[in-house]
Amino acid sequence: MQRFFNTIGVIGKLNDSRVASTLTSVCAFLRKQDYQVFVEEGSAQFVCDPAQVRIGSAKQLGEACDVVIVLGGDGTFLAAARDVASSNIPLIGVNLGRLGFLVDISPDTLTQTLAQMLSGNYTQEERCLLRAQIVRDQHIIHEETAMNEVAIHRWITPSMIEIVTKIDGVFLNSQRSDGLIIATPTGSTAYSLSAGGPILYPSLNALVLVPLNPHTLSNRPIVIHDGATIEISFCQRKQINALVTCDHVEIPDVLISDKILVTKAPKPITILHPAGYDFFDILRSKLNWG
Amino acid sequence: MQRFFNTIGVIGKLNDSRVASTLTSVCAFLRKQDYQVFVEEGSAQFVCDPAQVRIGSAKQLGEACDVVIVLGGDGTFLAAARDVASSNIPLIGVNLGRLGFLVDISPDTLTQTLAQMLSGNYTQEERCLLRAQIVRDQHIIHEETAMNEVAIHRWITPSMIEIVTKIDGVFLNSQRSDGLIIATPTGSTAYSLSAGGPILYPSLNALVLVPLNPHTLSNRPIVIHDGATIEISFCQRKQINALVTCDHVEIPDVLISDKILVTKAPKPITILHPAGYDFFDILRSKLNWG
Amino acid sequence: MQRFFNTIGVIGKLNDSRVASTLTSVCAFLRKQDYQVFVEEGSAQFVCDPAQVRIGSAKQLGEACDVVIVLGGDGTFLAAARDVASSNIPLIGVNLGRLGFLVDISPDTLTQTLAQMLSGNYTQEERCLLRAQIVRDQHIIHEETAMNEVAIHRWITPSMIEIVTKIDGVFLNSQRSDGLIIATPTGSTAYSLSAGGPILYPSLNALVLVPLNPHTLSNRPIVIHDGATIEISFCQRKQINALVTCDHVEIPDVLISDKILVTKAPKPITILHPAGYDFFDILRSKLNWG
Amino acid sequence: MQRFFNTIGVIGKLNDSRVASTLTSVCAFLRKQDYQVFVEEGSAQFVCDPAQVRIGSAKQLGEACDVVIVLGGDGTFLAAARDVASSNIPLIGVNLGRLGFLVDISPDTLTQTLAQMLSGNYTQEERCLLRAQIVRDQHIIHEETAMNEVAIHRWITPSMIEIVTKIDGVFLNSQRSDGLIIATPTGSTAYSLSAGGPILYPSLNALVLVPLNPHTLSNRPIVIHDGATIEISFCQRKQINALVTCDHVEIPDVLISDKILVTKAPKPITILHPAGYDFFDILRSKLNWG
Repeated sequence: MQRFFNTIGVIGKLNDSRVASTLTSVCAFLRKQDYQVFVEEGSAQFVCDPAQVRIGSAKQLGEACDVVIVLGGDGTFLAAARDVASSNIPLIGVNLGRLGFLVDISPDTLTQTLAQMLSGNYTQEERCLLRAQIVRDQHIIHEETAMNEVAIHRWITPSMIEIVTKIDGVFLNSQRSDGLIIATPTGSTAYSLSAGGPILYPSLNALVLVPLNPHTLSNRPIVIHDGATIEISFCQRKQINALVTCDHVEIPDVLISDKILVTKAPKPITILHPAGYDFFDILRSKLNWG
Repeated sequence: MQRFFNTIGVIGKLNDSRVASTLTSVCAFLRKQDYQVFVEEGSAQFVCDPAQVRIGSAKQLGEACDVVIVLGGDGTFLAAARDVASSNIPLIGVNLGRLGFLVDISPDTLTQTLAQMLSGNYTQEERCLLRAQIVRDQHIIHEETAMNEVAIHRWITPSMIEIVTKIDGVFLNSQRSDGLIIATPTGSTAYSLSAGGPILYPSLNALVLVPLNPHTLSNRPIVIHDGATIEISFCQRKQINALVTCDHVEIPDVLISDKILVTKAPKPITILHPAGYDFFDILRSKLNWG
Repeated sequence: MQRFFNTIGVIGKLNDSRVASTLTSVCAFLRKQDYQVFVEEGSAQFVCDPAQVRIGSAKQLGEACDVVIVLGGDGTFLAAARDVASSNIPLIGVNLGRLGFLVDISPDTLTQTLAQMLSGNYTQEERCLLRAQIVRDQHIIHEETAMNEVAIHRWITPSMIEIVTKIDGVFLNSQRSDGLIIATPTGSTAYSLSAGGPILYPSLNALVLVPLNPHTLSNRPIVIHDGATIEISFCQRKQINALVTCDHVEIPDVLISDKILVTKAPKPITILHPAGYDFFDILRSKLNWG
Repeated sequence: MQRFFNTIGVIGKLNDSRVASTLTSVCAFLRKQDYQVFVEEGSAQFVCDPAQVRIGSAKQLGEACDVVIVLGGDGTFLAAARDVASSNIPLIGVNLGRLGFLVDISPDTLTQTLAQMLSGNYTQEERCLLRAQIVRDQHIIHEETAMNEVAIHRWITPSMIEIVTKIDGVFLNSQRSDGLIIATPTGSTAYSLSAGGPILYPSLNALVLVPLNPHTLSNRPIVIHDGATIEISFCQRKQINALVTCDHVEIPDVLISDKILVTKAPKPITILHPAGYDFFDILRSKLNWG
């Protein structure tokens, strides 16, 4: 019988003991089915029988695995996706009891669901990532990947910042606000939604720019093509630093005089869902509709 | 010298005497340049020298003209676009002193701008239209076109309605609200924006569904592919009629038991703008940014 | 032993058989305790032992009772409150299984809770009502009471209306929109909230004006003193009628040329809650916080 | 003739040369009318004839003056109001060409307007202030005044914070968000409005709590009595510091383990407006209504 996957990685939520039982049953299940199992080192302490599995860094998992199972919340999935983004391997998301947008498999039915999926019975989906590049003196000095959003925040200074945005080189606006979110469809149900952004269907080739508490009330979310290049700069103010985050992780040492280029990353992330995956169903559940 | 256009239609804002002077100068300018001029009958009363122009219905203009100039506000343009939609001829929008999203040419510089554009120096843009179909007993009993939005409203009954939405046959949600707007990118800066919808870049292949004052606060605007089929039905309530509008024009005799199918119309509308057209510039102006 | 109440009215949700069992147990309980019981005629069909109770109109209940128990949802409570508003008697709200803002007593613990409350162990609260007066040719031709909100709606005509608002005779604004809600603190968690209004603490002496999908994006909810007189008129448009509702019930025959005066009603409604009533607790529950 | 004022203070926008000409004409006008003039030291460099005026700190102005004229924007007025808050003297606001909510007198008609006002022809208005107290180990370790708002912000850490709010000792909610604004009616048209808060009529005895981008979409602005005590604490997270600002000025050294008490300040600020002051007129102008 043909196998779809041989080596299967497992990444658990960092230092969270709640992953222990699920991790144990996943590893036992996979080993019983004769898969090679490769556990990310941050969860390795929770593996019952370490002799049965290989342990290594997320980077090593990315290189060696055919698929990676993520155990945790959407935040764990985001971090894992960014870690293995360059490796082009698919991810499966398993939650710890609370449904997530990305971790859509319940631990209660985990082994049956995994058995189905690993035998090829799954729905495959690609989600685009963002790439943020920090430009100083015309050189890219830093580059980071985001699955949900790149966000420009007001530095700790208590007053608003003034952000200048260009789309494909064309001036969009200059806005005083607490910041700006540039979100993917995946990110449109996360921080962007809290800030008043719309929900984008996951496979839509679009990004949304959402101002954070803009001084001008008619500054509203704008949805653009995901092929666009978004260029952010700041009207010079008193502060020296700028705060730019990718999926809530700060890019270090950004200056207010830097430019930030945001584009779609060259490669998307592949997610495997149980067959019959229904985004609207998850949306209804997560947003308490009906 | 090659001409880009031979017969040029002119549609003015209905029964609005403010079109008179602009209409007169447009007709004089076009006749002087030896174009055939075909004026829509609703504005014909304001033409100074009727002998110089042909007069007819919008339908006749659509059949005979190579391009149609619309004089008025965005509402005039919407009506004209729907009238000539089946003819596939481009439109040029001229305002009466107040910039519109669609009527972006000022009467002040009209003849210079027209001279440039008619000599081929223009920016061409396609905007998608929506088609609303009323389905009763599995038959399409009525079909209508919208450029901005199809809107489902609470009937005059003072209580909320309950609207069931499916996208490509998949259940999205059932929501109690004052109604639902399905807007094109063109419509995203009109009624949809008032209802809390995002701005969609004009060429984005997307539609936005915006709930009107939904009972569930997490019912938020959703942006989907414009290739989708949106199916609206109602949870049966006491009323008999349903109120469905296309660009604020009511579709007559819709029943609460009917289904409404909304899809992208087969053909887009072509708009000609002055060379250097900049959507963001119009956006900043219309929304009082900065 | 001193009794706080002698005659107790009961108003059930109209024609809804779900009230039957609760109504039966309430009547049995009250009769056993030797209270006079007076059931509103709309629910009388569900009373098991009609010989034990008096049956009459809401108006008759208002005249004869010391307190009225309402069985149903918030809508039932609103209607009852408006029916007995002039009688100045307190209301107790009992839900049919789903917590309401006004019907805060669960049927599960009903008889214990009632026993406590009828022996004087309750929290008393006053909620202001609104009075809408329709003025034609300087005469008040109609007057109506609302507990949640007075709402001015776009007539069935599909385009926006233009509403002129004055506060205590001072011009506030002229706005194009789908309408305007004027809500009490009680109403601030109902339709007003769906339209983007804030939550007002129940005892705050304030009203909120909430525009419905205003054309001007900076038209935002405004909170004013509840002692103010709000005067609404319309910029003349093509329609003849105006749609004004009190708690979702239409005021008949309002013309677009009429003025609408909205003020606080002279007398508030008194609600009795179980001792320890906590508005924030109900808010958290109703709005799914945390 | 009785004089209403003898010593008049003048506070200009700090280090902004645009105040020079207005400051000069104000001082000349006041001296000509034989008023004692007392200029705040931050603007003293722009006074043409320093021998004619007294120069000192804001505190000294507060002690010596009968009224203080503020030249600048709303931000200058806010700072001045907090500086003289304890002195209980009225303020007059003069803008530098751009109308503000607080600086409502235009420099163009300044001397005529001042002549009128100083002769007693003015509208007097009181605006409440907020007091923020930082509580550590049951002691108040710091106290600060705000005219617009007290704001609790996410520290520089890129993830949301979890804020617990109690009103008069009663638990309101625990919310994950970017922060929380507690605004006065005066502040309701400033930062609070950008964050989605309602407009409060200036003399309303109310405060509004506005969550900043809350994770739970039904977390909405809440308007409460201004006599309430608001107690803010944090669910312990990884960070050590908390960021609390009063009118965009940071309170130093607040810890995540501190409590923040926000109440109305004991004394309001008095503002003198030209006779016929109309808040709605300023509102329409500032918010581009119509």
